[in-house]
Parts: sequence; C-alpha cells; structure tokens
Amino acid sequence: RRKRSQLKKDMEWHLKMLLLPRRNVSPFSHSPAASYTDSSDDETSPRDKQQKNSKGSSDFCVKNIKQAEFGRREIEIAEQEMPALMALRKRAQGEKPLAGAKIVGCTHITAQTAVLMETLGALGAQCRWAACNIYSTLNEVAAALAESGFPVFAWKGESEDDFWWCIDRCVNVEGWQPNMILDDGGDLTHWIYKKYPNMFKKIKGIVEESVTGVHRLYQLSKAGKLCVPAMNVNDSVTKQKFDNLYCCRESILDGLKRTTDMMFGGKQVVVCGYGEVGKGCCAALKAMGSIVYVTEIDPICALQACMDGFRLVKLNEVIRQVDIVITCTGNKNVVTREHLDRMKNSCIVCNMGHSNTEIDVASLRTPELTWERVRSQVDHVIWPDGKRIVLLAEGRLLNLSCSTVPTFVLSITATTQALALIELYNAPEGRYKQDVYLLPKKMDEYVASLHLPTFDAHLTELTDEQAKYLGLNKNGPFKPNYYRCWF
Amino acid sequence: RRKRSQLKKDMEWHLKMLLLPRRNVSPFSHSPAASYTDSSDDETSPRDKQQKNSKGSSDFCVKNIKQAEFGRREIEIAEQEMPALMALRKRAQGEKPLAGAKIVGCTHITAQTAVLMETLGALGAQCRWAACNIYSTLNEVAAALAESGFPVFAWKGESEDDFWWCIDRCVNVEGWQPNMILDDGGDLTHWIYKKYPNMFKKIKGIVEESVTGVHRLYQLSKAGKLCVPAMNVNDSVTKQKFDNLYCCRESILDGLKRTTDMMFGGKQVVVCGYGEVGKGCCAALKAMGSIVYVTEIDPICALQACMDGFRLVKLNEVIRQVDIVITCTGNKNVVTREHLDRMKNSCIVCNMGHSNTEIDVASLRTPELTWERVRSQVDHVIWPDGKRIVLLAEGRLLNLSCSTVPTFVLSITATTQALALIELYNAPEGRYKQDVYLLPKKMDEYVASLHLPTFDAHLTELTDEQAKYLGLNKNGPFKPNYYRCWF
Amino acid sequence: RRKRSQLKKDMEWHLKMLLLPRRNVSPFSHSPAASYTDSSDDETSPRDKQQKNSKGSSDFCVKNIKQAEFGRREIEIAEQEMPALMALRKRAQGEKPLAGAKIVGCTHITAQTAVLMETLGALGAQCRWAACNIYSTLNEVAAALAESGFPVFAWKGESEDDFWWCIDRCVNVEGWQPNMILDDGGDLTHWIYKKYPNMFKKIKGIVEESVTGVHRLYQLSKAGKLCVPAMNVNDSVTKQKFDNLYCCRESILDGLKRTTDMMFGGKQVVVCGYGEVGKGCCAALKAMGSIVYVTEIDPICALQACMDGFRLVKLNEVIRQVDIVITCTGNKNVVTREHLDRMKNSCIVCNMGHSNTEIDVASLRTPELTWERVRSQVDHVIWPDGKRIVLLAEGRLLNLSCSTVPTFVLSITATTQALALIELYNAPEGRYKQDVYLLPKKMDEYVASLHLPTFDAHLTELTDEQAKYLGLNKNGPFKPNYYRCWF
Amino acid sequence: RRKRSQLKKDMEWHLKMLLLPRRNVSPFSHSPAASYTDSSDDETSPRDKQQKNSKGSSDFCVKNIKQAEFGRREIEIAEQEMPALMALRKRAQGEKPLAGAKIVGCTHITAQTAVLMETLGALGAQCRWAACNIYSTLNEVAAALAESGFPVFAWKGESEDDFWWCIDRCVNVEGWQPNMILDDGGDLTHWIYKKYPNMFKKIKGIVEESVTGVHRLYQLSKAGKLCVPAMNVNDSVTKQKFDNLYCCRESILDGLKRTTDMMFGGKQVVVCGYGEVGKGCCAALKAMGSIVYVTEIDPICALQACMDGFRLVKLNEVIRQVDIVITCTGNKNVVTREHLDRMKNSCIVCNMGHSNTEIDVASLRTPELTWERVRSQVDHVIWPDGKRIVLLAEGRLLNLSCSTVPTFVLSITATTQALALIELYNAPEGRYKQDVYLLPKKMDEYVASLHLPTFDAHLTELTDEQAKYLGLNKNGPFKPNYYRCWF
Repeated sequence: RRKRSQLKKDMEWHLKMLLLPRRNVSPFSHSPAASYTDSSDDETSPRDKQQKNSKGSSDFCVKNIKQAEFGRREIEIAEQEMPALMALRKRAQGEKPLAGAKIVGCTHITAQTAVLMETLGALGAQCRWAACNIYSTLNEVAAALAESGFPVFAWKGESEDDFWWCIDRCVNVEGWQPNMILDDGGDLTHWIYKKYPNMFKKIKGIVEESVTGVHRLYQLSKAGKLCVPAMNVNDSVTKQKFDNLYCCRESILDGLKRTTDMMFGGKQVVVCGYGEVGKGCCAALKAMGSIVYVTEIDPICALQACMDGFRLVKLNEVIRQVDIVITCTGNKNVVTREHLDRMKNSCIVCNMGHSNTEIDVASLRTPELTWERVRSQVDHVIWPDGKRIVLLAEGRLLNLSCSTVPTFVLSITATTQALALIELYNAPEGRYKQDVYLLPKKMDEYVASLHLPTFDAHLTELTDEQAKYLGLNKNGPFKPNYYRCWF
Repeated sequence: RRKRSQLKKDMEWHLKMLLLPRRNVSPFSHSPAASYTDSSDDETSPRDKQQKNSKGSSDFCVKNIKQAEFGRREIEIAEQEMPALMALRKRAQGEKPLAGAKIVGCTHITAQTAVLMETLGALGAQCRWAACNIYSTLNEVAAALAESGFPVFAWKGESEDDFWWCIDRCVNVEGWQPNMILDDGGDLTHWIYKKYPNMFKKIKGIVEESVTGVHRLYQLSKAGKLCVPAMNVNDSVTKQKFDNLYCCRESILDGLKRTTDMMFGGKQVVVCGYGEVGKGCCAALKAMGSIVYVTEIDPICALQACMDGFRLVKLNEVIRQVDIVITCTGNKNVVTREHLDRMKNSCIVCNMGHSNTEIDVASLRTPELTWERVRSQVDHVIWPDGKRIVLLAEGRLLNLSCSTVPTFVLSITATTQALALIELYNAPEGRYKQDVYLLPKKMDEYVASLHLPTFDAHLTELTDEQAKYLGLNKNGPFKPNYYRCWF
Repeated sequence: RRKRSQLKKDMEWHLKMLLLPRRNVSPFSHSPAASYTDSSDDETSPRDKQQKNSKGSSDFCVKNIKQAEFGRREIEIAEQEMPALMALRKRAQGEKPLAGAKIVGCTHITAQTAVLMETLGALGAQCRWAACNIYSTLNEVAAALAESGFPVFAWKGESEDDFWWCIDRCVNVEGWQPNMILDDGGDLTHWIYKKYPNMFKKIKGIVEESVTGVHRLYQLSKAGKLCVPAMNVNDSVTKQKFDNLYCCRESILDGLKRTTDMMFGGKQVVVCGYGEVGKGCCAALKAMGSIVYVTEIDPICALQACMDGFRLVKLNEVIRQVDIVITCTGNKNVVTREHLDRMKNSCIVCNMGHSNTEIDVASLRTPELTWERVRSQVDHVIWPDGKRIVLLAEGRLLNLSCSTVPTFVLSITATTQALALIELYNAPEGRYKQDVYLLPKKMDEYVASLHLPTFDAHLTELTDEQAKYLGLNKNGPFKPNYYRCWF
Repeated sequence: RRKRSQLKKDMEWHLKMLLLPRRNVSPFSHSPAASYTDSSDDETSPRDKQQKNSKGSSDFCVKNIKQAEFGRREIEIAEQEMPALMALRKRAQGEKPLAGAKIVGCTHITAQTAVLMETLGALGAQCRWAACNIYSTLNEVAAALAESGFPVFAWKGESEDDFWWCIDRCVNVEGWQPNMILDDGGDLTHWIYKKYPNMFKKIKGIVEESVTGVHRLYQLSKAGKLCVPAMNVNDSVTKQKFDNLYCCRESILDGLKRTTDMMFGGKQVVVCGYGEVGKGCCAALKAMGSIVYVTEIDPICALQACMDGFRLVKLNEVIRQVDIVITCTGNKNVVTREHLDRMKNSCIVCNMGHSNTEIDVASLRTPELTWERVRSQVDHVIWPDGKRIVLLAEGRLLNLSCSTVPTFVLSITATTQALALIELYNAPEGRYKQDVYLLPKKMDEYVASLHLPTFDAHLTELTDEQAKYLGLNKNGPFKPNYYRCWF
C-alpha cells in the first residue's frame, strides 16, 4: 500500500494537471447542459447507492441509472454526427479486430465518448471506464452506458477520493485484467504504474490523447521507465489541424460573440502568435472585416503573416489603439501589466493559446483595480480613472470556456483513438518497442478518409501506371511519415 | 370613448403587427437577461402599485423602481458603445436644438433606447415614453429612467390592455401636449389618430423606424390622411446597410453556432435570395469554408451572385445534398413541404429574411411528423423513416431570435432617430409637407461621420479647388439624394 | 457649309474628347495586336484606294480588304464569348425587331463590335459604320465587315480629316437616310447636328454609350435642343457594375503585374476613393495579401471601408510607408507633388479613376526630376537624391492602358446597346419624349438574364401566388426603376 | 579524355534535364526582354571574338561586352528589390565570411543572379560562372558582370558544345582551383565528377538549388559516391513556401490573364491536386470569384480542401461543366484524352504542377484534331465537330512560361544560396559529412528575417524569462529541425 504522503503528492500533481488548461481537451461539447435532467437534488453519493441496470448487473457506479433513457437519446444524436465510428462498426460486422481486447479507459464521459466506447464494444473489446475529470461527466450518458452493460464508474462532481476510487474500480477487478489502456491526461496510466505495475506484463499498449499525458509518456520513455508501447494520438496530423487551425477559425468568433455581443467589422485586433491557432484566428477575423495585426518571434511565421496580409508589429506599437488582444503563443507573460495599463477603454483581452499565463492576469489582482463580473466568463477590470478592460474567462482558454467544440472535431479524435487501439492490439510482435509512437501515416490518412463522406467528397484513385510513376502504393500512405508540413 | 368593437379590431391589428417578425427590430440586445434581477416573484401589477422615485415623483409606471441602480449600470455600459449620441450631447452643451420639443415615444425599452432618450433630454426635449412591445421592456432600465425623472410607462409582460393604457398615459396628460412623435411600429401614431386627432395640430412631425410603421404611414399618405410630415428612418442608407449586409454577415454565424454548435467548414449551404441580407450570409459562410449555392428570381442579383463566386441554382436542384437551407427573400413559401420532404437527414433550416412564412412551417404540422424541442429555439422535425430536420426558431427570423444585435448597430439607428427629430423640429416652414420623407442625404452622411471615430477613421476633406471641380459643397452632401446604389 | 473657324473649333473639341481618358471605353480588348497581320508597310491612304469586296461592292473604305479572312476568324472567336448577342440572333429568326431600321454607328471597331453589328443585321437592320477613335480600329475586322457587305469606313491611324470624312460617308448617302443613331463619344451625333439637322426628323432615337457622350446629351436636353429621345446606356446597372466593380477587381491585378511584375503579398497599398472602382481594387488586393489603406471624403463610403476591414486614413498619414498608391476618385490633384516628394523609394503610383489629373503628373515635369522610360507605360521619375517613383501610364487609366477588358464585359455593353436600339425603335409613339432615358429596369434585367447561361446559372421563377404576394409581374421588373442601390 | 560515346550520353542526359520543366526555376524574371538591346544581328560566335573589358581583362566570354552599361542598370534595379543580399554586403564590410572562397557557379544568368554573384564577391569570394541553360542568359547582364571583372562564360543561344565549353572554362583554369560549387541542375557537378574528380579534394561543399540537381545528389549519396557535403537549398522551408504557395497564388492569375484575357468571376474551375501549389491556385481563384472544384488522391489533403470550402470531386464528375482545368499534382496523365474529349467548347487547360505529362498532350497529336496557334503559348485544339480546347504552353508549366517570377521570390532563393555557401565554407571540421543536408533551421530563419524589413515588419524578441520557459535560445532556432508542418 502506498503511503499517505505519496497519495497526497499524487493528488497535488493531479490537481495541477486539472488546472492546466489543455488545448485539445473538450469536455463540454454539448454546452446546454441545462437541458439535462441533471438537477436532481439527490445528495447521496453514488458510492453509497445500490443500483442495478435492467439486466440485473450492478458492476458500475453512476449518479442515477434511471436517467439512462435521456442519455441514450443524446448518444443517438451524437451517432448521427460521428459517421466514421459508425462506419467502423459496420466494417466490423465480419471481423472483430478487437476481439479479446480488454480496454480500460479514462476520459471525459460525454455522448461522443459513449459512441467511441460502444464502437470499441462492437469491434469485439470489453471495456471498463472512469472519468478523467471530476466535473466533466454527463450523468445521463454514464447511466445509459451502464444500462447497456458497460462498467462505468463516473459522475459529475466527484471528490478527489472518488476520482481515484473510480479508476481503481476499473482496474482492480476479480478475474479481469486489462490488456489495453486508453488514457486522457495520464492519470489512469499513473495509477497502474503506482499500484499495479505487474499489470503491464499483459498490457499491449497505451493510447494517450492529451498534451500532458503525452508529455509524461515521453518523460517515462526518456527515463527508460516506459514498459509498453504508447501511441501519441494528440499529435496526429489530422487531429492537430482540426483542433487548431480549423476549430479555432470558428471558435474565436463564437467565443467573442457569446461573451461580448461585439461587432467584428472595423475592429482593430492584435493576435499574438502566428502558429496554427493564430492563423485560424487571423483568417476568421479578417474575413469578418476586422483589421488584424500580428506579433511573432519566429521570422518564418512572421514572413507568412506578412504574405497573408497582416502587419507584423511589436505589441507595444499597437497596444494603445487596438480593440481586442488575443494571445495564441504557448508562451507566458505575452500580455503584461504594462500592456494592460496602456490599453484603451473597453479593450477586450482573451487567450486562445495554451496556459492562462499568456496574459499576466495575476498582475491585475492589485488593490487599485476593481474587478466586476458582468456576465459568466466576463470580467470588467476597472482602473482608477474609470478605464475598463474586458477580460474573458480570466485568461483561460476562450474556446474551451466560452464556445463549444463541434462533434465533428471530436469524431476525428475518437476515430483516431479507436484506430490507435486497433493498431497497437494487432501489431505483430516487434513492430512497436517500449517507446512513444505517432500514429502511422497510413492510419492518419484512414481517419481522414472516414470523414470524407460527411462532405460528400470523392477521392481520386491512382491508376497502376500513376502509382508506379510516383513510387506509391495505390492505397497510401501518400506522404512520407515525416511529412507534416505540406498539410 | 371608443366602442368596444373598435378596440377589439385595434387589438387584433396590433397583435398581428406584433406577430409579424420585423427586420430592424432588435428588442433583446443584451440577451443574457439571466443576469438581471428580474426574477422577482412580485405578482402585483405595476398599475396597482404606488411608487415614487427618490425625488418624489410618481409620474411613471414601471415594474420596480428599486431596480434603478442595476439599470443605470446597464445604461452606462451602453453609453460607452454609443459614441455618436454622446457626441451629440457634447455639441448640445451650448445650443439646445430640441429646446421646447415635447416628444412622446413608443419603442423597445432597452439600455440603448435609454441612451437615446437621455440624449434627447440633453438636447432640450421633454419626453414621455411607452413600450412598443409587451415583452421587450427591460424592467431595470425602465426603473433607471423613471428614477432620473423620465415619465416611463412600461414593463415586461404587459397585457394588451396594459399596453394601450401605457400609451395613453404618455399622451393623455394634463397640461402637457406632445409636439413630436417617435414611433416604432405605428401603434402610438395609431392611438393618437384614433383618440386625439386634434393633437396633430401642434405636432411638427413623426419619426418612424419600423417597416410596418413606415408602410402604414405611406398608406395614410396615399389616402390623403397624413396630416403632419413623417420621416422614414427605416430606409436611411446607413441604417439599411448596417441592419442588413453588415449585421447579417455576423449574425448568421452567431445564430447558427448558438443553436446548433455546428462546424461551418465544408458544409453545403443554399441561401435563397441574394439581396443585402443574402449577400451578407453568403460572404460570411464562404469565408468560414462553407460551399454556398444561391437561388434568385432577379437576373441582376443572380448575375452578381455568379460574379461573387456562387453557383446559381434552383432550390430543387440542390435540396437533396445541402446541409443548411437559409431563406433571405422577403417572399413566402420559398421552402415548401416538398422541399422539406426531400432534404437529407440532419439538414438545418432557418430564416434570415422577413416573415416566418418564407419557410412553409405550417406544412410541417401534420400528424405523421413528430416535433421534438431539443433546445430553446431548436426543433427536430422527425419523419416516419427517422429522418430529422433541424428547424430553427420555428422559421421566424434567426438573428432576431437566436443571436444578439451589436450595440453599434443600434447606435446607428438611435442616432438617425435623434437627427430626424432635430431636422423635423427645426425645419423652416414649408420644407416638409404632409408626406413621408427620407432622411436628407446630408444627415445620413452626418450619422455615418459620427460613427467614424469608433474606428479611429480619418476622413479626407476636399480642397476648395477640388470641391469646385466636382461641383460639391465641401461639407457634403457628397452624393445626390437619389444615390443609394453605389453605397 | 460650315466655316473653317467652326470646323477648327469642332476639331479642338473633338481632340479634347479624345484625350479625355474615358472609363467604360475599351478599345483594345485584344491587346496582342502584334499577332495581327497589320504590319503592312502600305502607306497609301485608304481613301485613295480602289477596293471591292468579293461581291463587287465598293461601298466601304478600309485599310485592306484582303485581310478579311483573318478578321473573320477574330469575329468567330469573339462570337463564342458573346452568347447573349448570339441568343438574340436566334430569337430573331422569326420576328425581325429591327426590320426597317437604318442604323448609323460610330464606335470602336473591334471583333466585339463586329458581333454587335452583325447581330443588328440579323435583327433586320441596315447599318453604316465609322470609328469613334482614330487609333482603335482593327483593320482586319473592318475588312471582314466590309467583305460581308457592311459599309464600314474606318482604319487604324486616321487623320482628323479622315475621321470626319468617314463619319460623313456614313451619313451623307444617296437614297439612304438613317433612322437610328448608335454613338460612342457623341461625335456622330455632333456631326449630324451641325451638318444635317434635318435628318433628325426621321430619326427615332440615339443610343449613347460613353460618359462624355451622355454628358453632352444631358446638356443638349437642358438647353432644350435635344430633338429626339436618347438612351443613356452608360448608366445601366448591369453595365456599371461590370465596368466598375467586377472589371476593376481583376484589372487592377492584371495592370500592376503586366507593368511591374511585383508581388502583391505583404505590400502596403493606399487606395484613394471607395466607390465601386475603389471597392473592386481593395477587395482584389486584400485577397492577394496586400495591406490596404483607404482614403475617402464621403462618410458613408468611409464607414463601409471600415466595416469591410480597411483602415481609413488621410493620404499624408501613410504616404511615407506605402508601396503602392492607387487613385479611384473621379477627383483631381488627389496625389499632389507634395505627396510624391514624400513617397518612399520604388513606390508605384497609378490611376484607376477617371481623368489623368487625379495624380498631379504635371507637377513632376520639373527640371530637378529625371524621367526614365523603363518599359512601355512605365516611367521612373528620379529625385536628385536617387529616389525613384514608378509612374504607370503617365497617370492615365491603368486598366485602359495596361490591361485588357474581357470580352464578357464588352458583351454586356453590346447587348445593352442592341436592346436599347430595339426599345427605341419599337417604342409606341409617346413612350419617349425628347429627353435622355435610362434603359428600363426590365430590359436591364433582360441583359443580365441573357448572360446567365454563360455561368450555367438557373434562375428561379416566381409562382403565381408568390408574384401576387410580392405585387410583382412574374417576368419582372423585379425592382423599381429607381432601384440602383441594393444591387 | 572521355570517349565520344560517353559524351553523347551525357549530352542526352543533359538535354533531357533541360527539357524537364522545373518548378523553382525562373529564368525569365524580366520577361519584357523586348526592351533589351539584344536584337543585334551579330552572328559571330562569342567563342570566336576577341573582347576585353575596360580594365583590359579578357578572362570571360560573353555576347557583347559593349552591352555592359545596359546590364548594369538592370542589376541596379534588381538590387533595389533584393534588400537581403544588400544587407549581407553591409554586414560583410568588416568580416569577410567568404574570404579565400573560390566559387565556381552554374546558374541562370539574370540580373538577380548578378546581385548574388556580386554579393559573394563583397563577402570575399572569387567567382567563375557559367550558365545552366543555353537560352536563359541575359547577354547585357553577362556583359556587365564581365566588365566589372567577373569571369563569366555565357550567352543566350549557346550550342550544346558551347554549353560544356563554358563550364569547362570556369573550372579548367591555370593557377585557380575552386573550393566551393554553386549549381543549379547538377551539370557543373556532373562535369567535375566526370572530368576532374581530383578537384573534390579541395572542395568544401556543393550548394544545389534545383529538384533535379538535388535528386542526383541524393542518388550519388545513396550510391556512396558523394565525396563532399552538399546543401539542398531547394527544400528549405522559406524557399518552398514562396516558390509554391505564395508565388503560385499570384502567378496562376497572371498566367491565365496574359494568355487568355479571360474574366475569373463566375468561372467554374477544377484544380487537380491540393498540395501547396494547388492551395495557392485555389485560394486566388476563389478570391476572384471563381467556383473551384478540387481533385485529390490523399485523404488528408482532401479533407483540407473540404474544410477550406472546395467541393472534392473526381475529375470526370465535373469535366463536362468546367471552364478551366488546372493540374498541380506532380503526377502524370492526370488529364487524359478521354477527359479532353468530354470538355466543353472553349475550355482552358493548363499545368501548374511539375512535368508536362500531367496533361496527356501527346494524345492530342492525332490527325482528326487540328492545332491552331492563336497567340504565343496559346493553342486552340479543334475537334471535328468544331469544339475548341484552349491549351496553354503546350502543357508545360504555366507560370514558368506565361508569367514572371517576382524578384522578391528570387531574392529568397539567392539569399538562401549565399547563406548555404557561407555555412558550408565556414563549418568546423566534422559538422558536415559526405551527405546531402538541408539548410539548418536557424539559417532558414535568418533568410526569413533578412526579408522582413521589406514589409517594415517588426519581430518580437523573447525575454530571458520567456526563452527559459519555452526552452529556446533567444536568437532561435524557434522550431525543431524536423518542423516543417506548422509553417
């Protein structure tokens, strides 16, 4: 048994991770949770309840199994927008590529995850599941999964103790041992490392989705402690492009509108950073008639900004004149108190980048400034002379806090996870060592191809002659593994 | 006294007007009314309450005078985004162009209207005010106005009897008779015509903002019954361009996102109608990566759509393949039941045009179809085979129902109203006859110029030599009165 | 007989007109005249030659009838891109709406004009034709027309005497008197007024295409001297939109590239004037990645520029930093010597507006500045310190001088001319008085509709019910005659 | 001495290379060669002439040393647009990073190359130079270089024997042996390998610019025959992005306009391939109002096309309806005779990709089809039924054949070459082995940074704290070497 002090340390680490705003994480896809039947005043802890699903099983722990029907409807709606997973199910009617797989998972529990989970089931896998975040579980969805036989251990508003208890209930089972891990954030992996290291003997691989989880896996690998192959699905080309460029192109507009009802036309905006996120923000705002300035540290990205039609400036050159400041850097203290002091009245400040330290929000917590919460996620910070700065989401990720993530984007992530599990589970001995891998190019292409029907898009096939001329296999991969750029 | 039967007729007319979705009407600019202190369970009718403001006046009727402070804050925030009215106030510190004016008004009562009303006061006018819509009054704002001395008669949730009672209280006052009318919808004007026709002897003019109100004025004029000059501010160039092209360009995205969380990229959309509203919708969706088709009846607009890069089609040619259908026609039955029958599963249908008959929603109220309300303003209409159509706002105006109108747009309208009042009030005898007028070009230009500082925009002035060459006055108007096109 | 002095005056006037750069005039559509067989060293004046076409007629005067075959091929190519006129011919196989019409024309003589002329013939008209410009005739095309029986009097490089002689030969014919005039610039009309005023008794109308010609007609009308109806086709909505917005959107890029081979991406550009021409230039350059500033005198256009995403500045605020200056104002001395003195090295200056006085080119003809012609239409003006300004087309219209006009645009003009002739010729007595008219809305719509098939565009037809609801005729016009704005 | 048969083989290889249209090659930047004094009827071979420059040297062989002054002016104009090289010269006033370098070069000889060559000289190098293409030398520029002391051996219209003779004269010199090679196409390298293999003992490295040359170096490396380090500057990120995305975005419009004078608005276009070149073409045409379809074989690029708003189709689905077909694939037989047979009348076909086999032009050389050359680079291919296809540049690269390459793009290439030479020449022993290298990320960033002043672009510098947080050096590189994607 682990000692108390160790547990506390783990908790602290876990909390820190939770607080780290993570790009690519999208817990609250169906924002209007208000429409849910969730407002039960039932204060009893799920751990203290005796619940059974209609088939008599009690191998689960959810808020209220009676909410299953409502959750099922949500899952059905999500299914309509996740055609790639549905296509996988169809193809799996004959062969079951995950037959024999025993997957333990730890992710946000949403309708989209449920579609993934049920797809894994349809592919032959047995699954047990916990939540990777104490707040993000949709109770009705968890109930629906439990009702249809999935051992799910999760509810909204878990305590930290609940959190680890749930994970433990997924892993520590009589007569069942996982041979695959699907993780989002690294907590499940961490738990098994700490408590049941022997389990890794039977585990064929880990699939990890989050930046933080991947970071930890690379550190394990560097330290020589990674004892199974791991697949980094966070960095797959398809997922990255959607999570960053395409998704941010839409969510910057959505996030600003929902919080401020502002008009974009004619507004002067400075976007700090011209990576994929910055490119998406700039393109959208320019298209809506804003005048956009860009700051950059990297001359190559800077030159791109120029060619794309944006004035490249230093922040302090435009800080007095702009109506909106958006950070997309991955850096810290990009917007300092000095900048904030010089902004004009009503300037809007928000972060689309990574951590909430891109804007030095801490520097605004000083006595001479007054904070006024004018709406959810919107604070007015008021200077002694009456100047107001409009700070969104307290500097945390705007698109995570103030807009929703389309199911289509989640579908790409979920499909990538499913394929990564299939690949690791079926890979011949020796293909993968005890290291962290990117999804093979070909599977990345496969994920993309599964999403083309959504757009009624028709791919061209190479003729034999052409394939030979290009030195390619007709079925791909069409680009080398290292190819990430020309995407 | 009017007879009961007549009153009933009037009521019916009024109701019909209320139900007519009106472009250019924007009652709910600050949508998150949830933040308001409005949830008082106070069931007493304001008409039965005894209220006094802090100066002892009781010449008003609002929900709760105690909410004044909250409303004042809303007004202050709106002031920051209505620089044109604030500039008018400043210029009026010397001369008072509305000194002696007695304005009776009937509009939506929002923070933006309050800024207008207090500007009229600062320009020298006395005002009395009622609401033009039984639902759209923001009680806190009404309270704040009453507190600062404006006789306001309005609250959210008036009965029809209340509605006319409030209007009557504005007009029927001992020792005070209006000499100017500011109307939005024509109800106030209608009331005076019916009840106090003699009042028109002292009235210098009517300023009307809505399509319906303007329509009625033209009909009065045609019938020879218009007995004072009227200014149609609805059709001023600046207002039209903002209400239609620029505002719709942003609100189509906002309305779709808030209701459906959809991704725009790659979606196939058909926009019916390529007037200003259609142009705005098309431009925005194209910029976000949608593939947009257009339908048109007018070959000139059709040719424009072609040159702007949109495939011009008949609706039935693309109806099976599109993901979204948007009507912007001003016509009726543009989307018929037959079209709806042929749409694909999950197709989104909405209206940005004029009336809720653009989509034949009535045809969907048949027994074989199931309606499911999935969110506020979002219905799934389900066919027997399981196909779902996503109908937004039951076919009423999407941007009115599901997105907000930026204060900047309201500022243009309000400034136009203020200038129209000034013009009519100060016009020398004979400039305006008993007819309906458009705002003089020069004043339209003035409204625009008052909004340029918002963008830190610097206008160029003609030299004497250039003015002579062009045959223009250096201060405008710069275009002839009939010039509407090249805008 | 007119006196010599009067003739001289006329000549001067004519020359002044010729030197006025005229928007909407597009003489050199097929620029690569180099490919023509034109380089004959034949110095004999056509007036001194004896030429017959293959049918034995000698009622024409062109450079060389033997070039007919080459010209015919050019006409055939143009026919392929002028489907509207070809459609008119087809419809005229039954009825001949111009049967009996005797049209005398004076226009640029190009392949496109030839298609127009032969269409008029197919519609039943007899035509006689001269050139409206002493340089713009394509000799091969003139030869082809003469060969197929059209009395054409025109060649490239006419003297002024030749010019009037040709016009006279069209009008002053035994046994033939025109009853319709098609003019471009007003010279033909002017000639008949001066020499054969009695001819107007039989003339049913004038169709005029150019700004200058229209201007003269309005002056005649004002002076009460216009003795037949005239149709101003220059200001038809369709033509205007194409000549200005759409055509300039493409020709600004073309003109700059052909003259300077510059890269647009990242360049800072100031566009003076935000009318239709300015809008087209701004949109194109923004799309190519330039950073565009706008100057305006009219606050309404200025506000539009803001909402479209352009910084509105005064010219002197950005003159030191911009790479390109483009005038689109219709004004004069917009770019002054002072501005030119302050521009940076290599700055490009050009005019897309109206007259060559928009840029004060005259001010550059001073001893301290050196002019260096580096290419056709490209001058370097060099300051004493070595700074060079790149002046295009000596400040004349860039798109007229340095780019070509697509046949499609000319097709719209030619179709409008044809329909205007038909309308005037067939109008019932009294429909048109001795005044200048715009093309009826319905015919404007018809021109547009004839060009839709080019885009495979399918117009929607109103149902009876819809037409009634909108109060429109099913076949149009769809907008009121005064409607020019919402286009 | 090499045997005749070997020489013939080499010649054939050389010719084949010459005929291969090469992306990234831009021989004719200043297209209007017509302005040159080149039309001398001097038929004497330069090899037979006795020429001396003004300093008495005759160590060169050019067409006519007297043209030097004209060439010098061209070089001076180019200098103004190549600020990066001029900046390098300035920095080299103190240290001479190429002191002692003896560079033999073989490239196109244009004004831009001259600026490069003279920069190398200013950096301390001695240079000898030949042309890499028998047609592309600008004689005046070669004369100017010879006049200022550069041993240049090149003229326009060399025979193949001349070609190798010139190269040999650069290398085979008494008392001078090169220690660096700058090659474009691999011919110079090939010649030294074949004739003077011992020279490689003193050679510190090869810098190669072309696709073909790089391909040959990789083959040599694979075969273990590469005996010095080589730098592949073709694949540097900056160069690629400019040569492909940004340059094609502009040149597709330029190439189409110059050849066909077509209007882009409303045209239906299919672009085959959605790599960087295809992306550039699609973006430009969409911006000009064309309706663009895309074909792709790679599902990832296909998904991008969808999200960017283009319908993804198979070519045969749209071939009957499109107005323009553009190939950008790098593949062959993408447009087959079958496609060509089905295109509609007047369809324009062109290639922006790699080789002239993308369109199966050979299949059009059959008896039933008539070819008609209507302009330079424009052929009408006419079917028996009269249908015409407009084929541009006979299927060779449109932008190479029919548009110009902006000096700015050439400046990036030239700067990259200069930095690669400096890097290889100064690299400490052991940094580079006998292999092919990409330009280090940091130098790529340096090239970019040298071009930012052109845009008056201001780069932001990391603070120490930020650099530490990101784990970066403040001066870069800012991205890992493998980073190519997020550019």
